[in-house]
Amino acid sequence: MSKDARWLAAAAALAARGRPLSRPNPAVGAILVKRGRVIARGWTQPGGRPHAEAMALEAAGDAARGATLYVTLEPCAHRSERGPACADIVSASGVARVVIGCMDPDPRTAGAGLVRVREAGIAADHLPSPACEASLSGYLIAKRLGRPEVTLKLALSLDGCIALTNGESQWITGAEARAHTHAMRARADAILVGGGTLRSDNPRLDVRLPGLAERSPERWVLTRGEAPEGWHTLPLPDAITGMDGVQYLFVEGGAQAATAFLAAGLVDRLLIYRAPILVGGRPALGDFGLASLAGAHGKWRMSERRQLGSDTLEVYEASPCSPE
Amino acid sequence: MSKDARWLAAAAALAARGRPLSRPNPAVGAILVKRGRVIARGWTQPGGRPHAEAMALEAAGDAARGATLYVTLEPCAHRSERGPACADIVSASGVARVVIGCMDPDPRTAGAGLVRVREAGIAADHLPSPACEASLSGYLIAKRLGRPEVTLKLALSLDGCIALTNGESQWITGAEARAHTHAMRARADAILVGGGTLRSDNPRLDVRLPGLAERSPERWVLTRGEAPEGWHTLPLPDAITGMDGVQYLFVEGGAQAATAFLAAGLVDRLLIYRAPILVGGRPALGDFGLASLAGAHGKWRMSERRQLGSDTLEVYEASPCSPE
Repeated sequence: MSKDARWLAAAAALAARGRPLSRPNPAVGAILVKRGRVIARGWTQPGGRPHAEAMALEAAGDAARGATLYVTLEPCAHRSERGPACADIVSASGVARVVIGCMDPDPRTAGAGLVRVREAGIAADHLPSPACEASLSGYLIAKRLGRPEVTLKLALSLDGCIALTNGESQWITGAEARAHTHAMRARADAILVGGGTLRSDNPRLDVRLPGLAERSPERWVLTRGEAPEGWHTLPLPDAITGMDGVQYLFVEGGAQAATAFLAAGLVDRLLIYRAPILVGGRPALGDFGLASLAGAHGKWRMSERRQLGSDTLEVYEASPCSPE
Repeated sequence: MSKDARWLAAAAALAARGRPLSRPNPAVGAILVKRGRVIARGWTQPGGRPHAEAMALEAAGDAARGATLYVTLEPCAHRSERGPACADIVSASGVARVVIGCMDPDPRTAGAGLVRVREAGIAADHLPSPACEASLSGYLIAKRLGRPEVTLKLALSLDGCIALTNGESQWITGAEARAHTHAMRARADAILVGGGTLRSDNPRLDVRLPGLAERSPERWVLTRGEAPEGWHTLPLPDAITGMDGVQYLFVEGGAQAATAFLAAGLVDRLLIYRAPILVGGRPALGDFGLASLAGAHGKWRMSERRQLGSDTLEVYEASPCSPE
């Protein structure tokens, strides 16, 4: 990895601090580097302003002159009622160089930010960064496909069950895995469960972690019927195109909701918590229309595996070449 | 790990060469060490004779004088028509010291081998060795419980399926995982499948690995009915107590056979090959009588995890404190 790529990855890590409170804006990270040292940092603030570049440049003041700005997303080129365009702020800042991890698919920017910074005489480049891309995945999918990024969570036994035959489901996984799920909820804009799960488990779906309770995301239920107070309804998975402002959707189950999203080809990421137990009970998934085993292979690529107590967390990303 | 424990582990690794052709005798390993170097090695030969100690001492000849003999199992104390007792051979060999990894539960030896070696004026000790115990697991279980050690193999999708809803099951896992299964078969004395699997898949259950074809184990089918030629029948899992001379039983499925063995509490080890695919089809296990989720926890301890191509192999051992 080049030095530039490493600085971009550092900016991507910083961007995580903005998520999900930056809504409706993407969670961007920016760092200013001078003579090999970070002199200022910024990330998108709650509500979406100030932007990451503005924060970092404000923090640096005159020291920004001659520095390199690493930013996960192309600086915005459009003026808004809420403040000036970042491309203009960057152009006036005196920085010597700008390195951008992802180009902005928003048609109001889409290359115009990069051009404007260059026109100001600053050496500016797009260095495609997987870390930046990953940190903006929900925003990029929302802009490109007009829907949120969908993460499907499954908490399973070794044999793929989510409950006993009699329905008992508490608990398959242990305390560490459940705490991790709460942290994942805190990064989501919306959480969804199926209608059956809502009726039988009446889940709170809140974030029970100290300091993160205010990050509890919107609660959605997959149903054609009525939703209880405080819940939004989604009549079918394809309707996620209408979830305004939601970049990250976390589907928590149960089996019917998981199966419906897979059948619709609308799962981008799997989060599988697996406990070292055998259950012989209710399977995690129903028939989602797979016609042959050959068609199942090559769709999922493992991006992470870690132990959480005695449970294992595996994260799989839908392969770019797959239809999902 | 002490030096002695490391030499015992080396002897245990050597013992694997004897398996499974040493039947009906346990696959034992022995090494002779002098001034920190291995001077001779031995392992139980096909058919059970010569024993490992005899092989190593024969190979060393006079050089055995003053050496330390590391042996995975207590030298046998009983004379047989097929040869002298190892305790006598060791006593006469001139070795200075004997280190034993496992005591022999066979009542004809059961401590008498160690005593006899000591009576010959040789410093002899039992140093309990998990590696030796593991290398003799089938023999030890057969002697202690009067039944073979049972390994249950499951080849699963991420969601715990072994086939599509329509029954298609070839293939869930890839070529590397299937080759590994053949190597595992070559270490077993007997392989078992359920009656349904035999009828629908007509599996060969042989060892298709170069040089190991002659190691194809006995083939058993779990059925109360007739078996095809070349197959043995087992009417129910508890009947494994009657599998004469079988120390290692490898249960390959399908779901009914796996479920029956789990319901009987007769699974000592799980071998789980997991492919990175979702299937939404037939589950690996049926209801094996688990009454509550609390009762499922703590039964299985992971002893190994490795990648086989894009598949993952996990090995779980039944916890000693569990009823299984």
